[in-house]
Amino acid sequence: MVTELMQQGMTAVEEKLESVVASDIQLLEDASLHIVTSGGKRVRPRVVLLAYLAAGGQDLDSVIPMAAAVEMVHTATLVHDDINDHSLTRRGKVTVHARWGRTFALLTGDYLFTKVYELMAPYGVEPNVMIATACTRLVEGETLQAAAAKSGSMDRETYKQIISLKTASLFEASAKLGAWLAGGSPEIVEAMGTYAYNLGLTFQIVDDILDIIGDPEAMGKPVGLDLSQGRGVLSVAQNGGAGDEEGVTAVAELEEPDPIKQMLAGLRNSGAVEIARLQAEETGSRARRALDKIPPSPARDELVNLIEAVLNRDH
Amino acid sequence: MVTELMQQGMTAVEEKLESVVASDIQLLEDASLHIVTSGGKRVRPRVVLLAYLAAGGQDLDSVIPMAAAVEMVHTATLVHDDINDHSLTRRGKVTVHARWGRTFALLTGDYLFTKVYELMAPYGVEPNVMIATACTRLVEGETLQAAAAKSGSMDRETYKQIISLKTASLFEASAKLGAWLAGGSPEIVEAMGTYAYNLGLTFQIVDDILDIIGDPEAMGKPVGLDLSQGRGVLSVAQNGGAGDEEGVTAVAELEEPDPIKQMLAGLRNSGAVEIARLQAEETGSRARRALDKIPPSPARDELVNLIEAVLNRDH
Repeated sequence: MVTELMQQGMTAVEEKLESVVASDIQLLEDASLHIVTSGGKRVRPRVVLLAYLAAGGQDLDSVIPMAAAVEMVHTATLVHDDINDHSLTRRGKVTVHARWGRTFALLTGDYLFTKVYELMAPYGVEPNVMIATACTRLVEGETLQAAAAKSGSMDRETYKQIISLKTASLFEASAKLGAWLAGGSPEIVEAMGTYAYNLGLTFQIVDDILDIIGDPEAMGKPVGLDLSQGRGVLSVAQNGGAGDEEGVTAVAELEEPDPIKQMLAGLRNSGAVEIARLQAEETGSRARRALDKIPPSPARDELVNLIEAVLNRDH
Repeated sequence: MVTELMQQGMTAVEEKLESVVASDIQLLEDASLHIVTSGGKRVRPRVVLLAYLAAGGQDLDSVIPMAAAVEMVHTATLVHDDINDHSLTRRGKVTVHARWGRTFALLTGDYLFTKVYELMAPYGVEPNVMIATACTRLVEGETLQAAAAKSGSMDRETYKQIISLKTASLFEASAKLGAWLAGGSPEIVEAMGTYAYNLGLTFQIVDDILDIIGDPEAMGKPVGLDLSQGRGVLSVAQNGGAGDEEGVTAVAELEEPDPIKQMLAGLRNSGAVEIARLQAEETGSRARRALDKIPPSPARDELVNLIEAVLNRDH
């Protein structure tokens, strides 16, 4: 029953994502549809819908624009990230930046941000405050990441702050939005937020692990990209204890013949991935414990399953 | 009385603009303050405040965040525009892009957009729908402009569509927001929107004229910038009748020694500026007529004065 509802809901989210980017300016519509229809895991809108159902929501239609909005925030940032990272592929397709050029990619990202606004405006004050806060944190996280990568000052504390701001905050908002719209009590909304915040941390740590050990074909993008830009799970390795630190330092000094490949190999052998994996398991457990405060339901079971899916994904 | 109120109000808007960009991420706060405190004409927030007062609003404090929000939309787009235009100076200061680099300028623009959201969220559904619509149109206008400049397909109709979308829509929203918050009737809100829409057209046409004939020192930026990028009032000249068309075509073919200077000189002599000036007077008159539907008040007088100020500005 929940599975069927969720399938209908996620289909409606896809349709909303596609219809809302319609524009008289053909280029904006084309570029928006290019990224919007390129797949993606859709974890955030799934969290919105499941949180809504688990908090007792009865009218799934009412939550669709909200679920589309959080995915749109994520999508807008992807388009801008790809400009800053000079990325040529994303989800196995050419990036907006590579296809339409930097100027139009920048404008397409801005356009998608305005669509977040359009989708959220009808929900009134509290949901808009929630998503505004999440959007601010997300940009702060992206900026901290770029600054730390540039200055080479990435350490474990900074890494935690980055993934909290850039990923966990939007996950948190997704669940709180769904639970709030369902009329959940402040305690339920808060517990749902704690669940999704930790799910977001888990998701990002796994993402950074996959950047090191992932299969480029399954990922739809090159591995080592984050690493090559001074980001991601490297920081965990750099601070993973004396043994690991030496291992990584030694590898980092090897600049020939391909420093990224060398660093990837070094990291794979340094124990860094295993440490990061343990951290992901830990944040996953926290997410699971937060659900204890939510009454049992098939939707809650799905929220539990989502933790497993995030932990075990290969792309 | 209105003058004093407006001075207090505009000071409060400045304070709000500065306080809302505070961030734990120092770079974002620094870059945001750099552009936010660089002056600017503040026409849009002035329109919000005056429309609020002219529609009978009594509590100017309540409209300050809204006025700051519309200026923030404009400011965010300036930061992104400067990336796309490779501009090095803005308002007589170095641009965010020139000082912090492209990546951080892109993120700073995004950050400022999230602050629009934060400032507007407390106002509820209708104002947020209005500003979301204006933001979408603004980005559509910027995109149309970039596409037309790139393809060389700028004609008079496209120019009108561009300035309507990229400038007049946000002016329109500014006045409607103020009038709506004051509790103005739908007729008052609509009339105020028509006023500001035409004020916005006037503002942009004058802006494009100043790009051709302005004093670079008064402007705080180089003249001929828009022209050099295939935008602005050039289009008016290109379609300004057979005589003008020939004039511009002849000039455009002169590519040596400095094509921009040659085109500027040609445009100054082509009658294009005079045609554009007439159009600005016409849209200014429309703005004035729209105010006939607003009850007389000192604030309405100020809205009339604003048309004159926009028409007669030299920067």
